[in-house]
Amino acid sequence: MKTLTVELGERSYPIHVGQGLLRRPELIRPHIKGRQVMIVSNETVAPLYMESVRTALQGLHCAETLLPDGERYKNLETLNLIYDQLLGENFDRSCTLIALGGGVVGDMAGFAAATYQRGVDFIQIPTTLLAQVDSSVGGKTGVNHPLGKNMIGAFHQPRCVIADTDTLNTLDDRELSAGLAEVIKYGLLGDAEFCDWLEENMQALLDREPDKLAYAIERSCRNKAAIVAADEREAGQRALLNLGHTFGHAIETGMGYGQWLHGEAVATGMIIAAEMSKRLGWIGDDELHRIENLIGKAGLPTRAPASLSTERFIELMARDKKNQGGKIRLVLLKRIGEAVVTSDYRPQDLRAALDAHHAITERSLAF
Amino acid sequence: MKTLTVELGERSYPIHVGQGLLRRPELIRPHIKGRQVMIVSNETVAPLYMESVRTALQGLHCAETLLPDGERYKNLETLNLIYDQLLGENFDRSCTLIALGGGVVGDMAGFAAATYQRGVDFIQIPTTLLAQVDSSVGGKTGVNHPLGKNMIGAFHQPRCVIADTDTLNTLDDRELSAGLAEVIKYGLLGDAEFCDWLEENMQALLDREPDKLAYAIERSCRNKAAIVAADEREAGQRALLNLGHTFGHAIETGMGYGQWLHGEAVATGMIIAAEMSKRLGWIGDDELHRIENLIGKAGLPTRAPASLSTERFIELMARDKKNQGGKIRLVLLKRIGEAVVTSDYRPQDLRAALDAHHAITERSLAF
Repeated sequence: MKTLTVELGERSYPIHVGQGLLRRPELIRPHIKGRQVMIVSNETVAPLYMESVRTALQGLHCAETLLPDGERYKNLETLNLIYDQLLGENFDRSCTLIALGGGVVGDMAGFAAATYQRGVDFIQIPTTLLAQVDSSVGGKTGVNHPLGKNMIGAFHQPRCVIADTDTLNTLDDRELSAGLAEVIKYGLLGDAEFCDWLEENMQALLDREPDKLAYAIERSCRNKAAIVAADEREAGQRALLNLGHTFGHAIETGMGYGQWLHGEAVATGMIIAAEMSKRLGWIGDDELHRIENLIGKAGLPTRAPASLSTERFIELMARDKKNQGGKIRLVLLKRIGEAVVTSDYRPQDLRAALDAHHAITERSLAF
Repeated sequence: MKTLTVELGERSYPIHVGQGLLRRPELIRPHIKGRQVMIVSNETVAPLYMESVRTALQGLHCAETLLPDGERYKNLETLNLIYDQLLGENFDRSCTLIALGGGVVGDMAGFAAATYQRGVDFIQIPTTLLAQVDSSVGGKTGVNHPLGKNMIGAFHQPRCVIADTDTLNTLDDRELSAGLAEVIKYGLLGDAEFCDWLEENMQALLDREPDKLAYAIERSCRNKAAIVAADEREAGQRALLNLGHTFGHAIETGMGYGQWLHGEAVATGMIIAAEMSKRLGWIGDDELHRIENLIGKAGLPTRAPASLSTERFIELMARDKKNQGGKIRLVLLKRIGEAVVTSDYRPQDLRAALDAHHAITERSLAF
């Protein structure tokens, strides 16, 4: 097992990465201060891992809320199921919520913890690759609104994160690939050496070699933890973690939540960001192709849906949380391993980049 | 105008109290960092004061959300009206929300600000006595759940509070009295001298003498600001501000939101707390009668509704946010001017106090 720490003063917390961690009560119990624990999970994950977690919590008062599975349920209505259960069981302010599942479960359980009785403790037990490398770390919690993704939420740090790599064995291939999109993101935005490693080891990751997966998770978390520690509330550099997300959220929202997986949308979003970076003269054809190849090799889509027009893309991107004063802020690449946040581009360049991306889409489809 | 400061380090903010403040743009504009402002108000308050506030904000992009008026609308569904409007107008993270209204508007606008895009700025312009002396100060925001009051919320401090005493001229008598309940609370829980002053000046307050009102508001805010500064997140002494609220919330929830005004329920709750304090031998008959007289003189109810049984009271109180480990924590009086938080009493004492209160209710009704 590897342990790293997200350094946030009195809100610091450990991330444990390794095999068989769900069966180690000593990792979780020191972080539970009261007697009441609510495990929030979904219909898919609970049958697989609920029993292990409950065993680790023996002697405490444990309740469960099972959410419907899928991004399209990540809304205020589903969130209310957690509040109903907490209040129905008379849970008080000393209770702890445990998120057992992927990013949707983690974001919702975290937001419920942030807002139940104005804030209670929570613990992340991510069971998807995407959640292990990204959403469980850093304290971003929230739900979607019909007009935009993650528009309602709070910063609320967990007490600890337990990433048991055994849980990835039950993940389907599509979800595994979606998680790899966020892994690739860390390489592209700030860790060129990790990009090289990923190019060499992508097949091993797809084959789920435990050591390789554990290494990729730990290195991803280390990258993320450093950025979060430097900028907890996204006043500056934390926005770099949104590489591919501005375009990706537009795809997710535009296609209807749940059609594209978050990681898939981010993957394609990173390619559009790279295309835009090339248009601004920052990266060359070689780098663009390297990026496209790496993403393609991970089993991820490289083209946005043709049905999403340039106009609609821009309309959806105008609602991104990074925007200021009406200008769409983009995370772009100066080179592989160095991202920047910028709104210093001409609107017609963004339009042209999206048009060109669509032209390629249509050309590909024509074959 | 009097100005006091809630001392919370980098989250410190001023409270301005006085006449004609809505017409002084220089009080509000320094606290608005972006160009987008959303004024949240309700159908009753907006026709009276929206124009003044809009005038003070000339040159900025101003939008409005008008909520239905009343505690029964303080829920997630109504909150969504604010999110819809913010997203519909493409408001970004640099926007500011302004709460123009009473406690319900302030709590909901504040919670929307706490959670929109994971937190944006907000300003409180309270227009009821209750909001001016209590809910606008201290950063408690939230909404009700059918199973309990203020169960969903966040701590989110405003950038400033502007208490224009002119707005009290349009308040009806019942609302004025409800606000006086919270004013009396500050005296009872920690400021015996203020209690003396209130006994002498209650009629002047009911007659809305501007100087007396301004003095009562400023002194109330000063008491509250000191407690909030010492304990922002209610880890300890801030719970004293809940004097009368544990019983009061049970009345509000039990009767259906909106039947009893919050201040009315708190007033009666303070009397039950005093009766319980007497039962524990902490205060005597004299003090109990002083408290009952002061509350009665303020035009507030002194008896809980007979329809709310002791059993139901206890069931509702079991959901109070102060509770820990299944024990109902009460704020009681050691003497007038000194409250304590305690769960150190026998359950049968609480039951007996509620039974006795009901017996008096029924006796009174028999006359």
